[in-house]
Amino acid sequence: MTEHLVLHEYSPSGNCYKVRLTAALVGARIERREYDIMKSETRTPEFLANVNANGRIPVLQVGDRFIPESNAASYFIAEGSSLIPTDPFSHADMLRWMFWEQYNHEPNIATLRFWMGTVGVANLTDLQRLQMSGKRQQGRAALKLMDDHLSGHEWFVAGGMSLADVSLFAYTHVAGDAEFDLAQYPHVGEWIERIKGQPRYVAMDA
Amino acid sequence: MTEHLVLHEYSPSGNCYKVRLTAALVGARIERREYDIMKSETRTPEFLANVNANGRIPVLQVGDRFIPESNAASYFIAEGSSLIPTDPFSHADMLRWMFWEQYNHEPNIATLRFWMGTVGVANLTDLQRLQMSGKRQQGRAALKLMDDHLSGHEWFVAGGMSLADVSLFAYTHVAGDAEFDLAQYPHVGEWIERIKGQPRYVAMDA
Repeated sequence: MTEHLVLHEYSPSGNCYKVRLTAALVGARIERREYDIMKSETRTPEFLANVNANGRIPVLQVGDRFIPESNAASYFIAEGSSLIPTDPFSHADMLRWMFWEQYNHEPNIATLRFWMGTVGVANLTDLQRLQMSGKRQQGRAALKLMDDHLSGHEWFVAGGMSLADVSLFAYTHVAGDAEFDLAQYPHVGEWIERIKGQPRYVAMDA
Repeated sequence: MTEHLVLHEYSPSGNCYKVRLTAALVGARIERREYDIMKSETRTPEFLANVNANGRIPVLQVGDRFIPESNAASYFIAEGSSLIPTDPFSHADMLRWMFWEQYNHEPNIATLRFWMGTVGVANLTDLQRLQMSGKRQQGRAALKLMDDHLSGHEWFVAGGMSLADVSLFAYTHVAGDAEFDLAQYPHVGEWIERIKGQPRYVAMDA
């Protein structure tokens, strides 16, 4: 990869951490540029026009081009590495877990973490507060599904650690921030330690 | 592709249609197996144990293995075809739109279509009814973002039609079912006609 990489990010976001962890695991260098989403720094006319019309981070800048969406940015960085299986079934299986993460895991676990830990429950709208118990239930279901899968597998996709693990790790290992009790999911706990033990692992707050 | 493909589906679902449209466009044969989600046929112990522990369709069966998640199943079928760009940036850009579809488009436009057209507004829970206006607003924002992009591009990813177009087409072309006014998004309208004009195009109700 010869082009200069810049990560436009809000560093406490698990979605942004996915990209940093991927870069660390494959040994890619990225420059980091921080935005405070609590001050709407990703909704300025300049950001919307030049970085991401969707007003969200992370965005990976590749030379003068931009890749929004955490899992797409991670994929670009990991291209050609062992984090992306080449067998077509395993590759689709990896994407399956990454799409599942964005649809069934992130909107529940990451959103509760953001609401409880960053925004603060007292500052939520009534509608957000009403959604909390559904997100709690669906977040637990997501962790249970992961735990069941990991009871029979070391990694999400056969053959070794892949981007599916990186993607799911980001918000799972900090699910305690949203008061999910990870002790109830022992196989998830072992898998978290397995990832933390990788030689090039970097922590979320690094 | 030599293995027998079976699509476990609920045919009115746009997510299932993505997989059928992909198969048609690349000339892959799939056997179809129908489940009535309104009768919870994807939540039976047998389905959860043998097809998808997440209790959702579509699931693509490949021999005796299973790929849930519409965009992952479509990717498996399209592997090696012109629907998947080989240039790493374009490939990541395609995934970017597919992840965006699952996060910003489907939970708003597809959910409103399901609530209004299948479940019926009268049968919604209070919480679902309270979420409708937010989903309406976010659905319009998604269509606007698509329209802005298509004002300067023929397809979502440079170089031609890709899985990003298939993925976004599925629920966009029937957004009228959820009372979105597609006439307000003229570039989206032209793109819809462009897709319908593809030689191997199949309609959602085919």
